[in-house]
Amino acid sequence: MAAIITLTTDFGTIDGFVGAMKGVILSRAPDALIIDITHDIPAQSIRYGARALKEAASEFPSGTIHVAVVDPGVGSARRPLLLRSTDQLFVGPDNGVLSLAARAADRGWILDRPKLHRAQVSKTFHGRDIFASVAGHLAAGLDPEDCGSPAESWLRLTEPEPLQRPTEIIGKVVHVDRFGNLITNIANRLVGDPAGWEVTLNGRSLGRIHSTFSDVEPGEWVAYHGSSDTLEIAIRDGSAAEVMQATMEAEVTLCKR
Amino acid sequence: MAAIITLTTDFGTIDGFVGAMKGVILSRAPDALIIDITHDIPAQSIRYGARALKEAASEFPSGTIHVAVVDPGVGSARRPLLLRSTDQLFVGPDNGVLSLAARAADRGWILDRPKLHRAQVSKTFHGRDIFASVAGHLAAGLDPEDCGSPAESWLRLTEPEPLQRPTEIIGKVVHVDRFGNLITNIANRLVGDPAGWEVTLNGRSLGRIHSTFSDVEPGEWVAYHGSSDTLEIAIRDGSAAEVMQATMEAEVTLCKR
Amino acid sequence: MAAIITLTTDFGTIDGFVGAMKGVILSRAPDALIIDITHDIPAQSIRYGARALKEAASEFPSGTIHVAVVDPGVGSARRPLLLRSTDQLFVGPDNGVLSLAARAADRGWILDRPKLHRAQVSKTFHGRDIFASVAGHLAAGLDPEDCGSPAESWLRLTEPEPLQRPTEIIGKVVHVDRFGNLITNIANRLVGDPAGWEVTLNGRSLGRIHSTFSDVEPGEWVAYHGSSDTLEIAIRDGSAAEVMQATMEAEVTLCKR
Repeated sequence: MAAIITLTTDFGTIDGFVGAMKGVILSRAPDALIIDITHDIPAQSIRYGARALKEAASEFPSGTIHVAVVDPGVGSARRPLLLRSTDQLFVGPDNGVLSLAARAADRGWILDRPKLHRAQVSKTFHGRDIFASVAGHLAAGLDPEDCGSPAESWLRLTEPEPLQRPTEIIGKVVHVDRFGNLITNIANRLVGDPAGWEVTLNGRSLGRIHSTFSDVEPGEWVAYHGSSDTLEIAIRDGSAAEVMQATMEAEVTLCKR
Repeated sequence: MAAIITLTTDFGTIDGFVGAMKGVILSRAPDALIIDITHDIPAQSIRYGARALKEAASEFPSGTIHVAVVDPGVGSARRPLLLRSTDQLFVGPDNGVLSLAARAADRGWILDRPKLHRAQVSKTFHGRDIFASVAGHLAAGLDPEDCGSPAESWLRLTEPEPLQRPTEIIGKVVHVDRFGNLITNIANRLVGDPAGWEVTLNGRSLGRIHSTFSDVEPGEWVAYHGSSDTLEIAIRDGSAAEVMQATMEAEVTLCKR
Repeated sequence: MAAIITLTTDFGTIDGFVGAMKGVILSRAPDALIIDITHDIPAQSIRYGARALKEAASEFPSGTIHVAVVDPGVGSARRPLLLRSTDQLFVGPDNGVLSLAARAADRGWILDRPKLHRAQVSKTFHGRDIFASVAGHLAAGLDPEDCGSPAESWLRLTEPEPLQRPTEIIGKVVHVDRFGNLITNIANRLVGDPAGWEVTLNGRSLGRIHSTFSDVEPGEWVAYHGSSDTLEIAIRDGSAAEVMQATMEAEVTLCKR
């Protein structure tokens, strides 16, 4: 069974960058199964990349090697990192981009072995020269222990927690997806019975929580238990993000009815 | 030989949605060959998705499993569907998105077996929770008969037929491609000898039918036998769609010369 | 070990074009490993496609088959071509799109054997009907010698060379990447000691050459040895292309300090 390597980057798809990474991987592990998660992370948005990787990574089988490169600090002192978390491996810069998906990581290594890197290492493209190269070696069977020195700690992104009071929950929008739906930080499990709450978004009352889009008419607002296990807000057959303008960080309040 | 699974969605590529589907598939069929057809179908455009899938599917080998998810009614009463057509399998919502590619389908099943779904099934992401999961099981060898109850019928999109008279054919533009070329519903076989007709688009005379773009000068209009076996209209090295503004549904007339 | 086929096109990803090519390949070589380099080459920009392919191709292992289709002259007299260069194969139109990556090609063939093409060959989609089909046969083991008649010569793109004087080097911007960074034609090896030069872009002084973005403050201009082995110019955490407006062909001068 061939090793699976996923790729998550902000390199876009109009240049040869992503192709170069794939070539480096296949030169080291010709049988690797390379899976694109996305290359369209907004440029240099570490948090957006971290969320996309988290969304996808947990669905992959044990042994999957996830490479994520959103790397504004490339060539600086930020360290190249390998993490092991719940039987998967995560390769990328130590800037937090791996940290949401690899939240349970118990081991880490600094990728400081030049012989595992590309013959020439540039100062601006570690995605190709370090991360793809090490991932290729891992796919070909290299032990994580042999990838570099143990890391004692690494940078972890924090996610804002909602405020919980007896009769209300105050959260916010933490992600806007491609359809313009607003993903909040209010976990479904905090909500319990959806019928018990009234939802307000930036002061606009949205009524109660529904179970899916089609519970309301086209064009209407709808709050519902989202597929990432948190509350989401949408306009059926429309874009909530467009209508609301400023959406990230928007305040979402649930009040007991 | 590993099973081939193709993916056609409107999920875009900035989020982790597509990656999550791929992970679910590979967790059930680690050797599956996953092929992206496109994830950039215009949001919720069932007809556009159906056409893209039809364009590509017929080129794939027997046994290919095509998953198409353009699913505005997710979580509602619309049924999850499996179709078998000319030795290929088609998985997606019963809203017509499969129906142009699987036009010759002779068997269908409703995907109503929870044990074949993801452990948690959301109300808004059946692409991951039902369709990818069932496709993974099929790729791992599951018999279509064991995927659910037989379906007696399913939703089929119709495509408008051109009007044929002895001296004219009246059709319309049914698709605009990425280059701005206009694809009509006038089958090449209806036309026969291309030299015998004069083409008019929304009242603008375009002259006779040519065999390819380069038969005319850059910037000129050209009607030609397209690669999808219907008449197409383009501006050489330009975008007919941009110049014409309103293009879908535009009327195309062929008159005997 | 399965054959690797890479794809580089300007077909975009909203239609079924790319999927159709993949289907044709897999119908001939069901085990082929298909790798997307990019499908977002600007429409009909042969030079841009040639550069993206060059950037990626050299990283792939021996035996890789690269298919590149940016083909404004499809259906005209331009010839379908196969090149062999440093143990890799290159398939596409003879319009220069292969020529930067396959610069060292020593053998070429015209793809003039109809039995290796798709059963129906359109005048407008040789990507599917000729190039994908021949690539599939090659992946399945066909000898390049059996693909067509030998080609004596083929179209080669030239790249502008910088002007070298004892105390200055005058080059220009030849590519703008997805981040808005400006890639020049001044090879790193011409520069030697980076500390010895002062950089000017269209008359604006940018100071000395640095080793990476993070050597300067966010928002500042920075010239550095790029990952494609030439001098690049960027704005840290910004887009040099946006700030500079007209960027391709912009003049870049290095003066001895």
